[in-house]
Order: sequence, then C-alpha cells, then structure tokens
Amino acid sequence: MTHFNRILITGAAGRLGIELRKGLAHLATHVRISDRVELADVQPNEEAVVCELGDYEAVMVLTKDVDAIVHFGGAPLEVEFETILDSNIRGSYHIYEGARKNGAKRVIYASSVHAIGYHEMEAHIDADSPVRPDSLYGVSKNFVENLSRLYWDKFGIESLCLRIFSSFPEPADRRMLWSWLSFADCVQYVERALVAPRLGHTIGHGLSDNRLKVVDDSKAGHIGFHPKDSAEPFRDAMEAKTDAPDPNAASVKYIGGWFCELGHPDDEGK
Amino acid sequence: MTHFNRILITGAAGRLGIELRKGLAHLATHVRISDRVELADVQPNEEAVVCELGDYEAVMVLTKDVDAIVHFGGAPLEVEFETILDSNIRGSYHIYEGARKNGAKRVIYASSVHAIGYHEMEAHIDADSPVRPDSLYGVSKNFVENLSRLYWDKFGIESLCLRIFSSFPEPADRRMLWSWLSFADCVQYVERALVAPRLGHTIGHGLSDNRLKVVDDSKAGHIGFHPKDSAEPFRDAMEAKTDAPDPNAASVKYIGGWFCELGHPDDEGK
Amino acid sequence: MTHFNRILITGAAGRLGIELRKGLAHLATHVRISDRVELADVQPNEEAVVCELGDYEAVMVLTKDVDAIVHFGGAPLEVEFETILDSNIRGSYHIYEGARKNGAKRVIYASSVHAIGYHEMEAHIDADSPVRPDSLYGVSKNFVENLSRLYWDKFGIESLCLRIFSSFPEPADRRMLWSWLSFADCVQYVERALVAPRLGHTIGHGLSDNRLKVVDDSKAGHIGFHPKDSAEPFRDAMEAKTDAPDPNAASVKYIGGWFCELGHPDDEGK
Amino acid sequence: MTHFNRILITGAAGRLGIELRKGLAHLATHVRISDRVELADVQPNEEAVVCELGDYEAVMVLTKDVDAIVHFGGAPLEVEFETILDSNIRGSYHIYEGARKNGAKRVIYASSVHAIGYHEMEAHIDADSPVRPDSLYGVSKNFVENLSRLYWDKFGIESLCLRIFSSFPEPADRRMLWSWLSFADCVQYVERALVAPRLGHTIGHGLSDNRLKVVDDSKAGHIGFHPKDSAEPFRDAMEAKTDAPDPNAASVKYIGGWFCELGHPDDEGK
Amino acid sequence: MTHFNRILITGAAGRLGIELRKGLAHLATHVRISDRVELADVQPNEEAVVCELGDYEAVMVLTKDVDAIVHFGGAPLEVEFETILDSNIRGSYHIYEGARKNGAKRVIYASSVHAIGYHEMEAHIDADSPVRPDSLYGVSKNFVENLSRLYWDKFGIESLCLRIFSSFPEPADRRMLWSWLSFADCVQYVERALVAPRLGHTIGHGLSDNRLKVVDDSKAGHIGFHPKDSAEPFRDAMEAKTDAPDPNAASVKYIGGWFCELGHPDDEGK
Amino acid sequence: MTHFNRILITGAAGRLGIELRKGLAHLATHVRISDRVELADVQPNEEAVVCELGDYEAVMVLTKDVDAIVHFGGAPLEVEFETILDSNIRGSYHIYEGARKNGAKRVIYASSVHAIGYHEMEAHIDADSPVRPDSLYGVSKNFVENLSRLYWDKFGIESLCLRIFSSFPEPADRRMLWSWLSFADCVQYVERALVAPRLGHTIGHGLSDNRLKVVDDSKAGHIGFHPKDSAEPFRDAMEAKTDAPDPNAASVKYIGGWFCELGHPDDEGK
Repeated sequence: MTHFNRILITGAAGRLGIELRKGLAHLATHVRISDRVELADVQPNEEAVVCELGDYEAVMVLTKDVDAIVHFGGAPLEVEFETILDSNIRGSYHIYEGARKNGAKRVIYASSVHAIGYHEMEAHIDADSPVRPDSLYGVSKNFVENLSRLYWDKFGIESLCLRIFSSFPEPADRRMLWSWLSFADCVQYVERALVAPRLGHTIGHGLSDNRLKVVDDSKAGHIGFHPKDSAEPFRDAMEAKTDAPDPNAASVKYIGGWFCELGHPDDEGK
Repeated sequence: MTHFNRILITGAAGRLGIELRKGLAHLATHVRISDRVELADVQPNEEAVVCELGDYEAVMVLTKDVDAIVHFGGAPLEVEFETILDSNIRGSYHIYEGARKNGAKRVIYASSVHAIGYHEMEAHIDADSPVRPDSLYGVSKNFVENLSRLYWDKFGIESLCLRIFSSFPEPADRRMLWSWLSFADCVQYVERALVAPRLGHTIGHGLSDNRLKVVDDSKAGHIGFHPKDSAEPFRDAMEAKTDAPDPNAASVKYIGGWFCELGHPDDEGK
Repeated sequence: MTHFNRILITGAAGRLGIELRKGLAHLATHVRISDRVELADVQPNEEAVVCELGDYEAVMVLTKDVDAIVHFGGAPLEVEFETILDSNIRGSYHIYEGARKNGAKRVIYASSVHAIGYHEMEAHIDADSPVRPDSLYGVSKNFVENLSRLYWDKFGIESLCLRIFSSFPEPADRRMLWSWLSFADCVQYVERALVAPRLGHTIGHGLSDNRLKVVDDSKAGHIGFHPKDSAEPFRDAMEAKTDAPDPNAASVKYIGGWFCELGHPDDEGK
Repeated sequence: MTHFNRILITGAAGRLGIELRKGLAHLATHVRISDRVELADVQPNEEAVVCELGDYEAVMVLTKDVDAIVHFGGAPLEVEFETILDSNIRGSYHIYEGARKNGAKRVIYASSVHAIGYHEMEAHIDADSPVRPDSLYGVSKNFVENLSRLYWDKFGIESLCLRIFSSFPEPADRRMLWSWLSFADCVQYVERALVAPRLGHTIGHGLSDNRLKVVDDSKAGHIGFHPKDSAEPFRDAMEAKTDAPDPNAASVKYIGGWFCELGHPDDEGK
Repeated sequence: MTHFNRILITGAAGRLGIELRKGLAHLATHVRISDRVELADVQPNEEAVVCELGDYEAVMVLTKDVDAIVHFGGAPLEVEFETILDSNIRGSYHIYEGARKNGAKRVIYASSVHAIGYHEMEAHIDADSPVRPDSLYGVSKNFVENLSRLYWDKFGIESLCLRIFSSFPEPADRRMLWSWLSFADCVQYVERALVAPRLGHTIGHGLSDNRLKVVDDSKAGHIGFHPKDSAEPFRDAMEAKTDAPDPNAASVKYIGGWFCELGHPDDEGK
Repeated sequence: MTHFNRILITGAAGRLGIELRKGLAHLATHVRISDRVELADVQPNEEAVVCELGDYEAVMVLTKDVDAIVHFGGAPLEVEFETILDSNIRGSYHIYEGARKNGAKRVIYASSVHAIGYHEMEAHIDADSPVRPDSLYGVSKNFVENLSRLYWDKFGIESLCLRIFSSFPEPADRRMLWSWLSFADCVQYVERALVAPRLGHTIGHGLSDNRLKVVDDSKAGHIGFHPKDSAEPFRDAMEAKTDAPDPNAASVKYIGGWFCELGHPDDEGK
C-alpha cells in the first residue's frame, strides 16, 4: 500500500479525528495532528500542533512537509455565521493554500450530507446532482467543495470531498438506520482515498451498508470504498424505543434530517 | 418495526393475497381481508369482507378505520375492456377515494410489468422511463400509477406502485428465469414499503435476485427491499424441458413477454 | 399537401371543435363532425353526427370509412369521476377501437396540460418527463396517452397527444400570458400532425410563441409546428386589470394553474 | 407590469449599476441605490446610501422597506482572498440576511461566468451542470448561488443568479464576440426577473444574441428574457485588429477566458 | 475573419466540392484542390492535384504546407466493401496522417446522416447519441469520426465531422423537405468551422432551416452556423408530384431514408 | 443450457483463444477453431482451420455451418495501420459477411478497453457513452462495434461486443489491480452471451470483481455475467514491487492505460 512520509490530520481532537489517528497511523511514518484544543494521548509517531485554522501564518507552518492532508477541522454544526466564516471558510482556504504553497498533492475533506440536505429522500441523487445546502454549515461545505475544485482545475491538487452522513459510534436515532456511517467505514473511506491511484476531484457519499439505499455513490467507484458495517443490527432496539416518524416532517422528507427543521442560528433561543 | 392497528388487503383470495395474509399478519393487530369471492381459512386476527371493488358504497365501508391498504384486487389478466374498466379502473379509484375519505395514509398497489411491457429487454429502464403498456390490463396499471400520483401530490396519500414481474411458486417458463419474483420476496417488498420511514410516491420493480438483471430498481432504494431468492436453482430443469426461444419473438424481445403477442381481447377465440 | 378522403372530428361543437372544422376543411373531401349536442351551421362538406362517445355501437359506426380522427370530444373540465370515466376513458377507448376496427391509421388527441399539471414552473419538462396529473380530468388524459401508446406499439395506429395549455380567443388571466395557445396555432398543430410524414406516437405541447418558455416541445419537432401568435400584445391590458400573483400560490407554482388548487370534485360546493 | 414601491440596487456606482439605475427606474416609485463610493448624479426618485456590504448593521438598515433587491455589489475581479471574503461572501450574506429580516422577497444577484469558467467551450452546459469556478472570485459567486438556494429552500426568498458573461459597452476582445452581454440585454434580464410571475431559485446565463451559442439558458425560460443585441456587427473590426487565437490556450479552451490563465492572486506581480 | 495561407479541399470535383471551391476561396491565399478525376475550371488561386486518396505517398505530398483541410473526398454512396475500404477508410487515414506529419491543425470532414441513419425520426438525437450506421458507407463515416477523435485526443488535430443530410441544388424527394441542406448552407457550415475560435472535436448535423426539426445540433453551437435556406418553398410542388409516403416504410421511419431499405451491396442486382 | 451443433472460435491460438476452447467445449458438439498460425493440441471435438481473416474466400468457408461465432482473431496490439486494416477491419468484415451469408445468428466479438481508452478514470462511463479510442487498434475496435450494429439493425445478426480490459493469468501491473479480467471471468462472459435468451446488440465491459469500480456495465445486465474473481489478492505483492504511480500520468489518468502514452506506430523506434 502507498506509504507516506507525513500526513496531516486536522480536527484531530474531534470524534472522527480520534478514529482517523488510530486508523491511518499505518499509512505514514509521521502523522501531524492538529486541533484548536489540546490533543490528548499523543503517540510516538504523532506531531501534535494546536492551531486555529483561521490563522494564516499558523496554517502555513502546519502544512509544511506533508504529503497529504486529511482535513476534518472546523465547526461541526450549525452556528452563527461569523464562526462558520472563520473556521470553515477562511480556515479551509488556508488549508488549500498551505497545500499549494507547501506542495501537498492530495486532500481528503470532511464534507457533509448537509451540503445536499434539501434533496428529498426519494430523489436518489448522485455526485453530479445540484447541491441543496440545508444550513449555513452546509453552505460552508459547498464552499470547500467548490474551492477544492478550483485547486484541482488550476493548481493540480487532488481532493476527495467526502459527504459524511451520520458518523457516530452507533445509530443514535431512527434516521441513522439509513444514514449511519460507522467509524470503521469512515476510516476506510479516507484510507482508500489516500492510496487510490488517482483521485482527481471526487465527491463521495459516506454511508455504511445500511438496508435503505438513498444516494448513489457509484461515481466514487474508483476510490474502492466498500462499507463493512450496517445499521441493521441496531434496528429492533431503535424501533422499540422510538415512535414511527411522520413521513412529511422535514426531518424525514429531506436527507439532511433535522437540520432542515432548524431556523436561522440568529433566531435560535428566542 | 412499525405496528399498525389495522391494515386492509384486497384481492386476499388470490395467489398473492394468500401469501400476503400470512406474511404481513405480524405487522398489524387486525387484518381486514377482502375479495369478490368467499375467503377461506379466516384467521382470528382477520376480518373477512366479500366486496366488489366496483361498488362505491361497499368500498367506502371496506376502507373504514384502516391505517394502510395493500391493494392487490382486480382482474389479474388481459380481459375485455368493460371488466378492466370496472374492476381495475373504477375499483382502484374507489380504493383511493376510500383512503382519502377514511384517512388511510399509505397504499401498496400491485402494479405490473405489463405497465411497461413494450420496452425491449436490452433497454434497462428505471422508474422514470416512459411507460409502455402491452395490454389493456397494462393500461389499467398505468391508470392507477397515475391516479396514485395525483392522490400523493394533491391529497398526501403515499403509495408504492410495485410492478410485479412474475410471481409464482416457482419459475413456470424460460422467461421467468429472469422475471421471477418469489412469494417470499413479494411479501418482503410489501412489508418494507409498509414500514419504510417515507414512501412518497414510489415506483418499484418486483424481481427476485435472478441472474439476469433487466431493469434498474435503484430509485426504490429508500424502501429497503433486498431479494433473498433466485430463479437460478430452477434453470437446469427448465432448460432441459423447454427449447431455446427465438430472440426476436415478441415474447422474448419485450419485457412484457407473451402479453406482447396477445391480440386484442375482442379478437381472441376468433 | 396530403389530402384525405374523410376525417372525423369529435367534440366538434366545442370551442376548439368549431375552429378545427373551419381550419381543417381544406384537408379532406369529407369532414365528419360529431358531438353529444346538436351541431350548428353544418357545411356542405360536413357530415354531422350526434353521438355519445360512451356508446360503443354508435362509435363503431361513427368511425367507419375515415382516414384520420381528430379526437377533441369528452368532458373538458374537472367533474365527478363517473362522468370522466364514461366520456373520457370509455369514450376514448371506443374511438381507438373504432380506428382499429375500421382502419383509421392516425389520431390527433386533445390531451392537456393537466396531464402534467403538478410539475413546477421552473422544471422545464419535455415529452419524456414523468406525468404529474393535477385532477381526475388530468388522469383521464394520461389514460388516453397510455392507451394510444398501446395502440401504436401493438396495432400500428399513429397518434399525436397534443397537450393543450390554454386555448381561448385571447388570454383570459395572467397565467395565460405564458400558457396561451391561440386558436390559429392550435389548428396549425393539428393540421401539421395530420400531414406529417411520420407521427409514430408523439407527445406535443401546445403553446403559442409566448414570451415565457416553460416547457420544451423539441421532441415533437418532426411535426413541423411553428407558432405564429403570442400572448405578448395582451400583456399590458392584462397586467393593468389584475394584481401580481403570489409566486407560491399553487396556481402559479405549478404549470397546471388553478386545477392544482381544486379539491376533489366530490367536495366542491360543500 | 408589476410595480414596486421600493427596490434596492447595490453596486450602483459600478459599470452595470449605472445602467440598472436608468433601466429599472420605471419599475418602482423609489429606488434605493448603494455603493461603497459616493454615488453621482442622484435622481429625484433615488435614495443614495454609501455602505460597506461587510458592515452588518449598515446592511440591515440598507435593506429596510424594500420589496426586491438587485445585488450587483462586491469585488468585480480576482483579488486577494480577504477582500473577496469580506465584500463578496460576508457582504452577500448580509444582503440575504437583510432580505430575510426585513421581508424583501426577491433578489437578483450578479453571478458570473467565472462560477463555471473551467468548462470547455464545447461542453454546452446548462443550469444544472456542476460548477467549475476559475478563480477565488468565481468561488465567491458559487457561494452566493448556494447561499441563495438555502434562502429559497428554507426561508422562501426567490433569487435569480444571473451568470453575467462579458457586459461592456461593446465587445472588447475576440472572446466577447461570443461572450458579450450588452448593457441593454443585461438590464432586460434583470427587469424580466423582477416582474416574472415566479422565480423560485433560478440560474440564468446572461448573453446577448451572439452568433456562437456556447451555453444553454433554456432552464431560465420562465423569466422571459430574449436578447435584442448581438456582437456580430463588431466582428469585422475586431478581427481586423486582433490575431486569431490559439484554440488550445486556456483563455480560448475554457469559457472563463483569461481568468483561467490567471495564477493565484498571491503570486501576481512576483 | 481568419485568413489562411493555404487550405486543401479533397473531393473538389464532386457536387459539393465545386461549391466549396467557390464559397471558400475568400478564406485563403491558395486553395489546393484535389480529386481522383481531372479538375475543371481551375482558378488562378487554385492548385489542382489529381490524387487517389488510397495512395499514401501521394497524400503525404498533397497535404504539405496546408493550414487546414476540407476533406470531402471518397466514395459518396453505398458500394462494395473494398472500394469503401480503400477510398473512405484508408484514404481518410492518409488525410489525417498527412495532417499530422505536415502540421495541418484543423480538418473539416464530410460525414453523413448515414452514420446515424437507423435512428427513428422521432428519436431527436444529438451529437452524443450512439451511432446507428445504415450502410457500409455509413460505417466508414463512423470510422473517420472515431479516427478524428483519436487524432484530437492524442495528436491535437481539431475536426468538425459534419453529418451532411441531403445536400442537393434543391429538394429531390419528399424526405428532403426535412433533410435538405442547401449548397449555401453547406458552405456556410464549413466556413464557420474553419474560422471558429475553437473546434476541438465537434460533431455537426448539416441541415437547412427546414420546417421539420428532426435532430438537435445545439452541441455544435460554438461553430456559429445559422442556416439561411429552407426546403419549405419547394413543398407544394414536391407534394403535388409525389404520393404521401407510408409512415412505416424504413425510408420514412429512419432518418437514413432509402439507405435503410438497401440490401447488402453484394446482393444488389441479383 | 442452450446447446449448439457447431460454434466457431477465431484467434483460437491466442492467449484467450486457448482458454475459450477449454471453457466453451461443453456448449457445442463441434468446435471449429481457427487462427493464422498452426493450432496445437487439437481435441476430438475440435475442427482446426488455419486461415487468414483477410482472405474473403477462406472466411466464407470457415464460417459455413456454424451456429455462432466467437470472434477473438486479429492483431491484439497497436501496430502499423495496414496490418490493422487487413486483420482487424477487413478480417472482421469477412467474419460478419460469413455470418450473414452462412446463417450464423450470433457473434461474440473481442472488443477492447482501447475503444474507450481516452475516458478519464473518474468519468464512470457506460455502454451509451461516446467512444474515445486511444490507438489505431482502438479505432479498429470501434469499427467492428459499429459494423456489428449495422449487421443487427439491417441483417438481424446479434452481437456482444465485449470490451476486454486486461485479461491475463494474473494482474501484471498496478493498473490491472482495477482493470483485470481473469481468464475464468472472460470465459464466463462469453458463455453467458452465447446462451442468453436475447442479445440484440450489446456492449459489455469485461472486468473481474475488482475493488475499484471504474465503468458501469449495468446495460449488459441481460447477459447474466457475474464475475467470480478479483485482483485484490494480488494487491500486496504488486504494491510491494512497484512504485505508486503519478495520478496525472496519461497511463493513470485515462482508462486505456499505457496505450494513451504511445505515439503513432510510424514513430515508434525512431
């Protein structure tokens, strides 16, 4: 398997970042890990860096001498616009600039179902369907998908934009019976993208092998991701403790789930 | 799994109706079963009703207090137009009106390959392809598919129109080596549609996991149907006792099979 | 131009029927005209027949010795189901049976925007898009479109199903500023379909050359229809006397217009 | 024609803003005009406001009591990221927030060919094709297209995102012989979008009726734009004074023109 | 307009070649003209060369010092395979090799409707539709379309493959009322392709502005061809002297016309 | 399973021909095997014929009394044009003529990935995508695909054009980790095509069940091919002995692999 000298993982203190550190360690001699908060349990092969992605100079240093970047940092939820602007939009721009200036050639970006959340469940979209963000957070994911396309077309930096659906230890609500992405499957998707012979600019949809098939990920087939997990073993317990949803609720109708029922962050708590 | 208070099964004395009664019993406290002929072997959880679907008042009573309807009643073959008009067109209209007036929110309808029978075997259509009925019977299936679309868009009643290919105890001719839908798989498809979180208006193609793949059912992926059976174990015996077909015979060329070779019902027997 | 010995026009007493009688007279030696009401102002070249299309025997006689049929008869609006069933569904079946039994080879059918009325204005559908009926009337139009497809695939009878948008002497409301089909353009479309070298089974969308272009009629390009009229000259007067519509009203959002705001005919007047 | 009480034009001191002030005056009783620089030649019906779009509070005031917004403000060229971030991304967010909070229901946004500039000339894309930004400027246009989609799906604010190709007094180079949008045609497109019965969320491609047809704008047909001008009268003079281009130059190959040959703004001047 | 030093026209003694010599003369200082037969009426700006395209060495000489090639040479009809092999397949290969070795960068090739003749009239194909040759002649046209694609992708030689429908002085049968390409329009198409800023590899469909629109040529819109002629003025006379065709005759059903009714050339005359 | 009296295998001395002789023997009483070189190890059920496919008379004899033809003969690599012309183009024409004249009704043709080699790895094409040959060899494969289409549309001879990717005993380079077709899977594909109830004219893509999925073969689903092998077990050893490829090398970027890096055969060795 392709072996890297050094890869960088951003958001490394986050739920998925912790999994990626474990799951990708075998791919590189050095793993630089970064987050805005202190990183725990640093391993001998790891280089821990506390860094705000909105700080241009810091990111230029952070991205030095890395072969590939796994960019999972940034605000992970709907929040007020200025936070999204700084951490997700400006921060991701810094990451791509760091890659360009420092010569990293491949980026795996944690995009999200919320980039396409306003598609209906029965729409069965694929990677070429128009986007339908369901939140300011989702719009910031669109931004990075488009920015990375520019960095591919103009600067030759390859990207996988992996639209993560619901990556949790196990399905946490009824919707996750179809939208779940197990940690192991998430790590596998990132790993395959790092070692694929050619990535170009690819949009992927991160879902485990759940019973319901709601999006078409075939246009990422050159990555070689094959999910191993399924939400099905969790179905009976989940259905026993929750009510059947209203099919017309926005959180069921649209693939973005409850993000489609959120108001504007400025209005929350009023 | 979603549990219903009462579901209604029409056509309950038919070949598939009998299977559905057995296979869906676990989903509901009460199962109302109906046919135009006497119903045999009525179980304690079943409410048997003899009913002509062409009788408006009777159907309004039949559909009272049901949560969901599995509508498999009506003429199952090419017959003279007035019979199709009364049992399939008027009768299905009555079922949808019953659902609307009595508040049933979900209908599973037994549509048919004959709604699309004049597509060529190598066309590989999906749920959005234009219809190509192969018979008056097929046109009546188109009618209900369209009527149910209206009842979704205007009245909010969800439907699965399940285009059943060849549902028999086992493959009965060479064509069924690709077109077979086992009873168990047919029941599974209906069951999954009843309990799916959202149906909207979905067209499904009912086929077991046969070796030859002739239509694309991916746009029903949100139902969660995964066939368990295959016609392949029946292949050797079937090929031993039948001749290889002419690839240009209408019954081979078109997915509707021998319906495409039928003349008009008025001309039959002449 | 192709000259017929005899063509049949049904619905000949209707708004459009009267125009067709005038506009198509030059195409045939004899024009048989039919309606359920008495026909006025019968010309020397015309053969007037009062006929209920729901009467099988009468239609078999009506369709004798005609080369082509212009089928504009039937209920022109949303009405209770049994009327639609008899006049539009059974009646149109009789017309196609008459064509088949009596050897007429080409039918021009007055389908309607209401066959596709639940598509959104910005959807820009074409002839292969799935249907979206907006009324029982619309479902009956779908029925004849599908029936005529069967009569083409199985019996070789060619059809144009002309989805008429709003054919009135002049635009009668704001929506007609985009949906208008002038009488002259309607007649032209039918005329071109009668004389086209090949019709096969074609779906057409009948619209004048209005400023707003809402559907794509290019798949009927082999007919050779080119609208001559436009609603634009009527715009200023119409806008002066009516208010700007709410873009989210169903009658504006969907191409079917106010049919999409109608309830079920059984509920009207309650 | 629809008449507004008050519309807002941003970027009103710009090349196109000046044209819009003249061309749209007849549509509204009051025209609020805004730019970051002093506005010249203010008319009696105009309310001039100097305003930085990156200033949230100022934009909330600017957008008060307006019925519709013509948003042409922001950096019009490739510049360093922080300028684009502030004027185009943050600034446009403020405009949409102003619309949402103050009740404006329709926005016409000056998007750009640079949102899709990396498509090849022979690709013939339409409004549903994936975006291909050719610059940071282009990525900011994608951002607003996506943001406005969110504001439509979630908050019901209609938008036309008008991808302006080359809007100049006359074609200024050979590429503009196909990419030119005359001022009059630009104004017409905006005007039609303001008065269209329904906009929903529409992507338009702003081009005059030039000889070469490079993109397909039919999915904006419900706006009713019909270009009146053409670059053709300028062809001979332009060809006389310029050399034939290299078909493989990025500025010819891609529809974004010379933006596709630009490096990163950080590298310019080095 | 782009001016060439020297262009080469093959098939210059043919029906269309003679028109091209007249119509393209203004584009180049020198026009080399070639055919397998003696060329008549050679003009001062013309260099006449008698040449068999199947002769490799001769073609290498023929293609020296030319900037662009208008390749209309080869057998123009269905003939026995060895003739097609030599003149159309080997001959066209020689032309492309000549272009490659001698540095001509653009080729306009006379392809034909017979490359796609087995598509039905109501199919409304475009440049990306699969080919359907109707003759060995048509297969040789496919060959050159594919060969020229290779020479674009691998060697950077641009081509227009212009599928000529029926280019005659005037429509010669009923089918040409829709399939006619006037000489002037044919010359215009070639001219525009020679001077277009970028050709890449383009498939064009050569038709005048006839009433019936049977194929979609929009993917060649970057060429800037706009037909000026129409077959319509010839309609009345043509219809007066010919019978209406059978819509199901292969020559009407398929766009290739009577080529679809031809048997194999080996069988002709038997 | 369908049993033939006699099938013909061309190219029977080749790498795949030898496998086909073993794998298809059970399907026919007699297997005629042919090559331009002496055939070794002839079995009792085999009829060995040494034959140049470019020899018309010889091929007419070769194709006598056969029910089906497995046409794997011809030059298997990029070579100078005249060899390709004679063996692949003329030779395949002779095979189809032999089928037509002698009444063989089904041909399985060894097409190649090189017919579509210039598609990018992330393009995910299917059987209806435009061809992109990567070599003169590839153009000859296009030729036979088109010729066979003619022989289906006009003469009723069914074909599978099987685009073989990389059929070797085991993966021989890194690319074959996704492009490999095991011998057993190759034989299975041919076998299924011989016995399928209907072939019509089908394009297939021959790939084993490798981890990376690069093309979509679903439009050949009516053949019933299901690969049993995978290149995955060979991955570790292959990656251990080879370097990771450059994603932008033509041999990685395009699915045709190193054929896309070949120059013209005339230039090789210079």
